[in-house]
Amino acid sequence: MAGRELLQIPGPSNVPRRVLEAIAQPTLDHRGPDFMELALKVQRNLQRIFGTGGPVVMYPASGTGAWEAALVNTLSPGDRVLFYETGHFASLWNRLAGRLGLDPVVVGGDWRRGVAAEPVARALEEDREHRIRAVCIVHNETSTGALSNVSRVRQAITDAGHPALFMVDVISSLGSVPYAHDDWQVDVTIGASQKGLMLPPGLSFNALSAKALAAHETAKCVRAYWDWSDMLPGTERGSFPYTPASNLVVGLSEALTMLLDEEGMAAVFKRHERFASAARSCVDAWGLEIQCEVKEERSNVLTAVRLPEGFDADALRGLIRERFDVALGNGLGQIAGKVFRIGHLGDLNETMLMGTLSAVEMGLRLSQIPIVKSGVSAAMDRLQIEPS
Amino acid sequence: MAGRELLQIPGPSNVPRRVLEAIAQPTLDHRGPDFMELALKVQRNLQRIFGTGGPVVMYPASGTGAWEAALVNTLSPGDRVLFYETGHFASLWNRLAGRLGLDPVVVGGDWRRGVAAEPVARALEEDREHRIRAVCIVHNETSTGALSNVSRVRQAITDAGHPALFMVDVISSLGSVPYAHDDWQVDVTIGASQKGLMLPPGLSFNALSAKALAAHETAKCVRAYWDWSDMLPGTERGSFPYTPASNLVVGLSEALTMLLDEEGMAAVFKRHERFASAARSCVDAWGLEIQCEVKEERSNVLTAVRLPEGFDADALRGLIRERFDVALGNGLGQIAGKVFRIGHLGDLNETMLMGTLSAVEMGLRLSQIPIVKSGVSAAMDRLQIEPS
Amino acid sequence: MAGRELLQIPGPSNVPRRVLEAIAQPTLDHRGPDFMELALKVQRNLQRIFGTGGPVVMYPASGTGAWEAALVNTLSPGDRVLFYETGHFASLWNRLAGRLGLDPVVVGGDWRRGVAAEPVARALEEDREHRIRAVCIVHNETSTGALSNVSRVRQAITDAGHPALFMVDVISSLGSVPYAHDDWQVDVTIGASQKGLMLPPGLSFNALSAKALAAHETAKCVRAYWDWSDMLPGTERGSFPYTPASNLVVGLSEALTMLLDEEGMAAVFKRHERFASAARSCVDAWGLEIQCEVKEERSNVLTAVRLPEGFDADALRGLIRERFDVALGNGLGQIAGKVFRIGHLGDLNETMLMGTLSAVEMGLRLSQIPIVKSGVSAAMDRLQIEPS
Amino acid sequence: MAGRELLQIPGPSNVPRRVLEAIAQPTLDHRGPDFMELALKVQRNLQRIFGTGGPVVMYPASGTGAWEAALVNTLSPGDRVLFYETGHFASLWNRLAGRLGLDPVVVGGDWRRGVAAEPVARALEEDREHRIRAVCIVHNETSTGALSNVSRVRQAITDAGHPALFMVDVISSLGSVPYAHDDWQVDVTIGASQKGLMLPPGLSFNALSAKALAAHETAKCVRAYWDWSDMLPGTERGSFPYTPASNLVVGLSEALTMLLDEEGMAAVFKRHERFASAARSCVDAWGLEIQCEVKEERSNVLTAVRLPEGFDADALRGLIRERFDVALGNGLGQIAGKVFRIGHLGDLNETMLMGTLSAVEMGLRLSQIPIVKSGVSAAMDRLQIEPS
Repeated sequence: MAGRELLQIPGPSNVPRRVLEAIAQPTLDHRGPDFMELALKVQRNLQRIFGTGGPVVMYPASGTGAWEAALVNTLSPGDRVLFYETGHFASLWNRLAGRLGLDPVVVGGDWRRGVAAEPVARALEEDREHRIRAVCIVHNETSTGALSNVSRVRQAITDAGHPALFMVDVISSLGSVPYAHDDWQVDVTIGASQKGLMLPPGLSFNALSAKALAAHETAKCVRAYWDWSDMLPGTERGSFPYTPASNLVVGLSEALTMLLDEEGMAAVFKRHERFASAARSCVDAWGLEIQCEVKEERSNVLTAVRLPEGFDADALRGLIRERFDVALGNGLGQIAGKVFRIGHLGDLNETMLMGTLSAVEMGLRLSQIPIVKSGVSAAMDRLQIEPS
Repeated sequence: MAGRELLQIPGPSNVPRRVLEAIAQPTLDHRGPDFMELALKVQRNLQRIFGTGGPVVMYPASGTGAWEAALVNTLSPGDRVLFYETGHFASLWNRLAGRLGLDPVVVGGDWRRGVAAEPVARALEEDREHRIRAVCIVHNETSTGALSNVSRVRQAITDAGHPALFMVDVISSLGSVPYAHDDWQVDVTIGASQKGLMLPPGLSFNALSAKALAAHETAKCVRAYWDWSDMLPGTERGSFPYTPASNLVVGLSEALTMLLDEEGMAAVFKRHERFASAARSCVDAWGLEIQCEVKEERSNVLTAVRLPEGFDADALRGLIRERFDVALGNGLGQIAGKVFRIGHLGDLNETMLMGTLSAVEMGLRLSQIPIVKSGVSAAMDRLQIEPS
Repeated sequence: MAGRELLQIPGPSNVPRRVLEAIAQPTLDHRGPDFMELALKVQRNLQRIFGTGGPVVMYPASGTGAWEAALVNTLSPGDRVLFYETGHFASLWNRLAGRLGLDPVVVGGDWRRGVAAEPVARALEEDREHRIRAVCIVHNETSTGALSNVSRVRQAITDAGHPALFMVDVISSLGSVPYAHDDWQVDVTIGASQKGLMLPPGLSFNALSAKALAAHETAKCVRAYWDWSDMLPGTERGSFPYTPASNLVVGLSEALTMLLDEEGMAAVFKRHERFASAARSCVDAWGLEIQCEVKEERSNVLTAVRLPEGFDADALRGLIRERFDVALGNGLGQIAGKVFRIGHLGDLNETMLMGTLSAVEMGLRLSQIPIVKSGVSAAMDRLQIEPS
Repeated sequence: MAGRELLQIPGPSNVPRRVLEAIAQPTLDHRGPDFMELALKVQRNLQRIFGTGGPVVMYPASGTGAWEAALVNTLSPGDRVLFYETGHFASLWNRLAGRLGLDPVVVGGDWRRGVAAEPVARALEEDREHRIRAVCIVHNETSTGALSNVSRVRQAITDAGHPALFMVDVISSLGSVPYAHDDWQVDVTIGASQKGLMLPPGLSFNALSAKALAAHETAKCVRAYWDWSDMLPGTERGSFPYTPASNLVVGLSEALTMLLDEEGMAAVFKRHERFASAARSCVDAWGLEIQCEVKEERSNVLTAVRLPEGFDADALRGLIRERFDVALGNGLGQIAGKVFRIGHLGDLNETMLMGTLSAVEMGLRLSQIPIVKSGVSAAMDRLQIEPS
């Protein structure tokens, strides 16, 4: 097929050419001085991007592995854990906790908005005996496009005077919207490589607070591969307890340099805001509904679009992929077939976004889905505004 | 700058990733069996794309070199050569002939259409003594976006019973629109790598007829680097008289496979037609004027767009490059500053084209150039029609 | 530093350019049809390379993760597991089992040879109550360069009439020496990407027997990320329960094609045999001692070389890396500082091997380590013999 | 074939991975600001590497084109030109001059040494009428491995008080051995990309003196593609009269940075000296004869080795290529079949050189050519000496 494909699922995102070149460098001796120096630099830059002065543990694993790591390193079998369900990924994490022998309880459950602090506050207040050992939320719910206010949830925990650990999944938000592990007093932040960090999948992260490290001392969940104890010394030496996914680490080094030192995070965040705003203008102009109902919680990472009753979102996605070589995200769980998701994160510019929105508009037209044809034009109205 | 740039000048065009990878293979021994076999395959595929059973000579040189080669290999100092001026490139070629000691005469001169057969016919009829030794035209005038009807010019020469050689520059048409060296009885066809062949610049070609080879025998222009005599034996052996630009040749091999054997030329030509048609719909809807006034001569390779009086096309191009990372072609010669050119050739798909047209529309809006904002929408109307 | 580095640690090994290019392809939608088709092809080719008709589960993880997966998917807390210690990696695996709540018992312990079947047979015969649930061995002990006879160990288990599962780590042997999961009745084979498969680290594997799948049904170890149940359906569909390390999977596809369908495993194994034999001739000629004392157990993957008393192997390795850009493996565990390891696996040819051995010989000379200078010449004697 | 090939012909040489990556960057708009800035930087770095403050003209062409350019830009039809024949390439250049309508006269003719200043001095002294307009020599004769003393020839011209232009071909010496266009008062230096500059073929150069520019004013040879007049303004603006081979230019930029600013020319030259010296020790130890008989003229770029009577050098090269994936240079012209050439230039390190020499030694042994087997060992004796 001629021309370049567009990977507009909400992660993995398009990987910059420079990062692809970096992961294609000849594999290094991971115990040699060059790799160790690079790993130390990566560690420092991971700290910057997570907003922490503490260690960031890196796994050769998907994000799911980093979820597991966060739980087994800090908790003991039977421990109660509070999950806030904002969508499919929050519910997957909850299910995983159950399989690990923990006792998950769920609040929330509205897939059309982010985390509301109130139910968390209520649940913690009712937990007089402090049986809840951790509160877990997803910062950006990738299945719905809702971004939650982390510091408000933190405040609720603090206000409740509750000692639970606070764990936040930033898998699809890190590098695309502001995040502050230390300032927001998060205990374990769970990240991954394949979204805002502009890397292929295969690396995931735990950023840790002092409180998390203390909990680790007494946590009785069985662990070996995920054990922070083995990982921590290496964060200060650039070494790893077993073979790291070294080529991906070299790519991560390049991507972090591009984000932190070349474009700069302020510009990166503004770019994501501009593009998301243009995508939302487009959807609004089409007359379609955005999955996330709360305007201020609409994500700068992706926009999930609901189709009118009677239309199949997966058929639409298939058509757009076949005809225009654009991959879009599918609806997951309870909204499968009903929504499609436009990723507008990572290594993206105006022409890629306009190409994507044009492909979607043509796909909608071809599928006879009733829309107003002015979506793409509305997106241009927004994009032509000078970036400040 | 985040995201991917778009090279929408009318050549060099965007090079497919596979071709870039091919030119980045370790340099081969150009006298070794692997390279020689590849060179022979390239020769056969060049014959297919030029539409000839005769030899195609390949130079490590730009297209300008292949112009020079065509002339010095077939003509003698003082020979009269008829050039038809359709635009900037036709006039550059004419000037080059003069510098080589030939006697160029020019017909045509209208930069808003292709070659008209009548002036050629008239000039040949008036040339009773057959002093004109060659008729030279540009198939696709890259400076104006006019595509000429080669076979009609051929017919005019034949009808005039004139023995002149017929030379055609297909530098910007080859691989994007149909061409038939043998069927159209062209004597020397001049091509280059960086347009429809989807390669970086650095290679150029002469396809030869038997008549051209006969003329070569007696041609007295001084030549060494360009001499076909040295090149011809190698077209049957995969060898070269001096070091070929071997990495580019490896890329050419890949590009020809993609065009001829994977997408197929019929599909390639249809794709160019669809995209050109969408681009023209877009310009029409904006209410801007297309440089080529003759509808059936509008090129499927590029569209040159005239700006209303008082607007600076180069300022517009600069803005679009700065803000949207899209390179557009400038006006050349007598239309410098007045037109800009949108290349829609080579490795292109719908989202790249829509990205380009969106960037142009936003640039026009930002530059306060009076347009109707429906151009991009009109392009989608055209593109959404199923390719047959 | 000019020229090309040589990565002659016994894994990660040198990655072929084609594989590096494959992992640098733009990231695919791992839920799209292209990736799913590729994943199915990879599954079929993994079955061929493991020698099995059963499923091969693939993890985005290092080999250590696949060790953990093998144990937690088949065993229950407190289960006794027999480990045969042949070197550092066998002892690491044993330690990991303990941390997972299993009850490891160790036989063997001689780091200068492979697995002896007798101690295994004895331990199983003594285990009248069949408390031992699994026998675990390392096929190629990467720390010592000893290759064990898997089928003899299998025979010992069978002869003892013992129902224990049989697990074999082929992390550093797969793709370099023959292996037959089904024929040798292995229940879980543990592999990884970064050695004979010629890939960067980041993927690991479990090949499963029907007996292993049956054990999985009742195994009570806690698991989520590693759970075969989630992975198995995808082995027939090309899908994964969570995001796979997709770029590495694309690389794996290329590497498996090169091994299985281009060079062919018979030729690959012969090549490894020739190169190993040349390396051993070289070490013998130098008058140095090979760590593995049993000739027929010397590995075709690597050669661990002992230095005379009083010389520091790590200083030697440092010098060779600094001066000649060749990375060699260090001594691990009880032989740290005493041996260095030459990897001769993966994407290697005669000139790379001779470059490596020359660098080592120069390093030995420069370090004043007493050797006979004829090692490199002896290696040539062996290599010049025509491959049959 | 597993492993990495070695391109040890005396150019094209092995291209560093970074340079291959650079030429595989997406093609730039050659009239856009990014490329123009890069072209200016390249111009400044070319001046440094040629050792000149004057302009360096760059052609999208092979070295043969740059030979032609040097002659047609400075001379008029019938002008007498003195060529010193040191080997095949000097004689090709001479022949080319004849085809361009010049009047070449030849001195020298000994293919076993470099340029002797005396015959040049004599010819100039005898040329009372100053009919000789140019003296042309090849700095490093690629066909024989003889390096000539340029400044001694310069001295002879000066001493003769002769006004002839002085032209030097540095195609295979530039970047590998010291060169000083200005200091040695050379008028036109002819270079190319594919040897010491570590680039694929496709670019070539003319470095010009003020005297050459003055000659250009009155030179009457017909020219267009090669005309300096069109090229010169661009050397100060980063522009070109026709499309440059832009991807190769990007690669050149990277290569010049590596040579001039990273390794540094002093270290580059020393490395070439060390490797050449090791190669010569190796050939001496084998008991074979080096083509260049004058020791101080033996080239640091390549070593041409003579086989004993009765052995076929091309058969040997074929065997070494087939069995060991090493490409060696063939004998050219009068020494075809009698010598083979080992290139030891460009992006090379110790292990690549040792791999090459080992392959040659094994090839010699396999071909039953009588040698002493200690060549490779002798090379190590030389290489292990610490670079100062």
